[in-house]
Amino acid sequence: MEAQNNGPSERASNGVIDGPTNPMVTPLLNDLYQFTMAYAYWKAGKHQERAVFDLYFRKNPFGGEYTVFSGLEECIRFIANFKLAEDEIDFIRQSLSTSCEEEFFDYLRGLDCSDVEVYAIPEGSVVFPKIPLLRVEGPIAAVQLLETPFVNLINFASLVSTNAARHRKVAGKSKTLLEFGLRRAQGPDGGVGASKYCYLGGFDATSNVAAGKLFGIPLRGTHSHAFVSSYMSLDEITDKSLRRKDGSSTCEDFVSLVQTWLSKIQLLNGVFGETNQSELAAFTSYALAFPDNFLALVDTYDVMRSGIPNFCAVALALGDLGYKAAGIRLDSGDLAYLSCQARKFFCSIENEFRVPGFGKLIITASNDLNEETLDALNKQGHEVDAFGIGTYLVTCYAQAALGVVFKLVEINNQPRIKLSEDVSKVSIPCKKRSYRLFGREGYPLVDIMTGENEPSPKVGERILCRHPFQESKRAYVVPQRVEELLKCYWPGKSGKTRETLPPLKEMRERCINQLEQMRPDHMRKLNPTPYKQVSVSAKLYDFIHFLWLNEAPVGELQ
Amino acid sequence: MEAQNNGPSERASNGVIDGPTNPMVTPLLNDLYQFTMAYAYWKAGKHQERAVFDLYFRKNPFGGEYTVFSGLEECIRFIANFKLAEDEIDFIRQSLSTSCEEEFFDYLRGLDCSDVEVYAIPEGSVVFPKIPLLRVEGPIAAVQLLETPFVNLINFASLVSTNAARHRKVAGKSKTLLEFGLRRAQGPDGGVGASKYCYLGGFDATSNVAAGKLFGIPLRGTHSHAFVSSYMSLDEITDKSLRRKDGSSTCEDFVSLVQTWLSKIQLLNGVFGETNQSELAAFTSYALAFPDNFLALVDTYDVMRSGIPNFCAVALALGDLGYKAAGIRLDSGDLAYLSCQARKFFCSIENEFRVPGFGKLIITASNDLNEETLDALNKQGHEVDAFGIGTYLVTCYAQAALGVVFKLVEINNQPRIKLSEDVSKVSIPCKKRSYRLFGREGYPLVDIMTGENEPSPKVGERILCRHPFQESKRAYVVPQRVEELLKCYWPGKSGKTRETLPPLKEMRERCINQLEQMRPDHMRKLNPTPYKQVSVSAKLYDFIHFLWLNEAPVGELQ
Repeated sequence: MEAQNNGPSERASNGVIDGPTNPMVTPLLNDLYQFTMAYAYWKAGKHQERAVFDLYFRKNPFGGEYTVFSGLEECIRFIANFKLAEDEIDFIRQSLSTSCEEEFFDYLRGLDCSDVEVYAIPEGSVVFPKIPLLRVEGPIAAVQLLETPFVNLINFASLVSTNAARHRKVAGKSKTLLEFGLRRAQGPDGGVGASKYCYLGGFDATSNVAAGKLFGIPLRGTHSHAFVSSYMSLDEITDKSLRRKDGSSTCEDFVSLVQTWLSKIQLLNGVFGETNQSELAAFTSYALAFPDNFLALVDTYDVMRSGIPNFCAVALALGDLGYKAAGIRLDSGDLAYLSCQARKFFCSIENEFRVPGFGKLIITASNDLNEETLDALNKQGHEVDAFGIGTYLVTCYAQAALGVVFKLVEINNQPRIKLSEDVSKVSIPCKKRSYRLFGREGYPLVDIMTGENEPSPKVGERILCRHPFQESKRAYVVPQRVEELLKCYWPGKSGKTRETLPPLKEMRERCINQLEQMRPDHMRKLNPTPYKQVSVSAKLYDFIHFLWLNEAPVGELQ
Repeated sequence: MEAQNNGPSERASNGVIDGPTNPMVTPLLNDLYQFTMAYAYWKAGKHQERAVFDLYFRKNPFGGEYTVFSGLEECIRFIANFKLAEDEIDFIRQSLSTSCEEEFFDYLRGLDCSDVEVYAIPEGSVVFPKIPLLRVEGPIAAVQLLETPFVNLINFASLVSTNAARHRKVAGKSKTLLEFGLRRAQGPDGGVGASKYCYLGGFDATSNVAAGKLFGIPLRGTHSHAFVSSYMSLDEITDKSLRRKDGSSTCEDFVSLVQTWLSKIQLLNGVFGETNQSELAAFTSYALAFPDNFLALVDTYDVMRSGIPNFCAVALALGDLGYKAAGIRLDSGDLAYLSCQARKFFCSIENEFRVPGFGKLIITASNDLNEETLDALNKQGHEVDAFGIGTYLVTCYAQAALGVVFKLVEINNQPRIKLSEDVSKVSIPCKKRSYRLFGREGYPLVDIMTGENEPSPKVGERILCRHPFQESKRAYVVPQRVEELLKCYWPGKSGKTRETLPPLKEMRERCINQLEQMRPDHMRKLNPTPYKQVSVSAKLYDFIHFLWLNEAPVGELQ
């Protein structure tokens, strides 16, 4: 079981790509038509023809103007381990027509991706529509078998890391963001994938233990409402002793110490009602188990009348023994108001009882949070330090899918174009290169695609960037910096050097850095300025339109 | 690898529950706080206290009035295989505080679910809010560790099977529904799970080969646009021979036969333009590979000017050799209009060339379909026989999560209630029984919860059904049939008989039958009548309100 202890990111960084994170990711994780087509290609003797496919999306998600690219490492792991097992070949045989020739299955048996090349933008990069995230070259039958798994692995990964980045943007840099979505995620690895890619997109930690183990993501979690209601009264606590933090002595009756503090607090605040005793027992018990990390969920009964005084009593008792409580979590009600009230309460205790730092206890908020509610909290003013975000984050509730596609752009060195009555769906043909051009202030200005053999844009040299389909949209750019976007992650037989896959932490840093590099108006929530991303060189423009006219049928008005 | 060849449903029906479908589903697929709570319970000597939890949801999804329950089998497989591996225990040790006592990890090492009992509504049943789908009893620390995995396994399963059932409802019984969502799903088993549960909810087949192998779901798929554009011209087809279906002879030049038919068709329809030759070559090649199952994607260039005539030429040529073509797929454009035009074309060919059955060729439609677009197609009138549905179906785009919760209702035989300022969030305490009461016409009338020890409702006897929280909402019911909803799926040490888990096909039939049994006004898309589901016996009502008053703090007006 040792392998499981090393996150795949670590393994990948050592250049070893030994199996997918998810054992369900086999070549059978595919649409049947990829296999029927493989047979048809094979039957026609066409299966080894060299094809080039681009993987890209057409529109940024969530009404925004940027996307965080992720899922690449999983694709490379998939390709590195691509091999059909005997029982899988049997199953494909059963699923295709009985008339299929047996030699085809011999071909499948020998099939791997050693002759496939994959070029990609580094994972964690900020990316834009239409620019290929991956360019995949190889024998057409083999490359077709990568379409469904690659699209599946990139679609949700990029969507959820973008969603995480958007939540970070609204919450601000100083807040702690916790991903709490496992239970509401779309299946087990909907949850595990969300945890991984939310971390990549800028979250700080997750509640998901499996993801913590697989990817080395920091874990967070305390207790639930059920823990609170599982207690009836303080009588249930039998072992009441707690050793001082410095080990110098032991308090034999921590419960009494808590009760003493509770009376003082009640006098201070003029609260005469009793706090809930189930809750007080649960908090006390939890503090006895985790004196060093006491964080209490304070809304099971009544936040201000019960949860906060109970929490403070336990926290102050812990303080007497040299422990510092962590803070509270609010999971219902008016989070803006309650967080401010709680902060006031903490500050008054700091002042009254002279407990330095008590006013700065961490306030965590959860309960169906999303971009909108974070934004609303900011506008109202709040005292929350950490947000626990689940359902809306991990299921990408605001937009549950990204439209990643995989299009043939060249076969046997012949460019191919996919036409459509909807211009936004016309594919950009040819094996291409893409570059990001940066301006004087360091911001990226535009991404441009050129033909494979065109000279690359040069720093300080004027280049014409054309919209691929709208004749009038074009601009000259003099780049201050030029970055080629596609790097070689799977060289096949090309002899090129393979880029290493960085650990998850580095991808996360890349993502955070790239987001910070963007011009702020592209990133704002409301009416962001579109990044001028869809651009092609003048030469590629002309070639696209030449092909288009050749392929498109001439209409007849009737 | 043999085990993989039997779907888990088959295995389960044999009473063997040997491992989860998804190897990621281990006890570590959990929120960290379940482990911190387990430690706190253990530290307080409370971990073996017997607790009862209800798993339910609060609101039907998609603005509807029903939900299809699924995910149970995966839960039972999880519980049957619940065992922490040594490396998992190590990881938990690292993740908790260093002050945790080592004996706790010995406890975890010995922990299994042999003392847990699970009662559940059968998978594939139509269910309603607030009625427990599962009741889980056992030592509190063990049962808490089931919360996150169970909620995860049921949430998406029930959501997507409900979504599938809703698509079936709009499409109608006679249509073939194909799930094509793998590439857009939320991760690999977001896709595999969607395929399984869409089938359960009434779909006929999937494109997902992995799901076909795991669960025995029928598979479907032909070819993509890339296949069409990978061809340039008919010259690429080198082996042009095709044996007659009856084996009596071989046609040496199938390509010429296709061309001959194409000329006849062009004369018939007065179409003078050339059809696209890449497309014609691709269709011909595909037919040579799959003469028995020729289904062509006809919208790569121009459906009516190229795709349909090309398809018909190949289909008629196949007919000459004794093969019957399957049909076409439309993946863009005005599906209502194009399907009607295609049907007309097929009929005119049937008449003109006297090819019986040609008019009835299958028309499949895909391209971002959902409940709304199916409904719109119905209103416009269309000739589609089969729908391929992807993104909106499998990601549950209209509502990407179901709010399943898991609430403590009893501990040590003491009922527990979770209060909330939001009445809809107040939990219904006590270990309960639930029944479905049926009326004279066979429709279910109401679901009612009673205390564990109350006598069950009797056929022909009047019983008062009360809304749990609204005093004035109550009704007498005289049931014509009474069905107890919760059955024992995991008996623990109770000695009860364990219900067998039926194969997926049977769950699907249960789902289809139960949906048909519902009164039609509950099922309609627009403003469905709510099913009167949230009901409790008079005795339980009184008890809830007695508890509520005891737990709730008395307010103070200030």
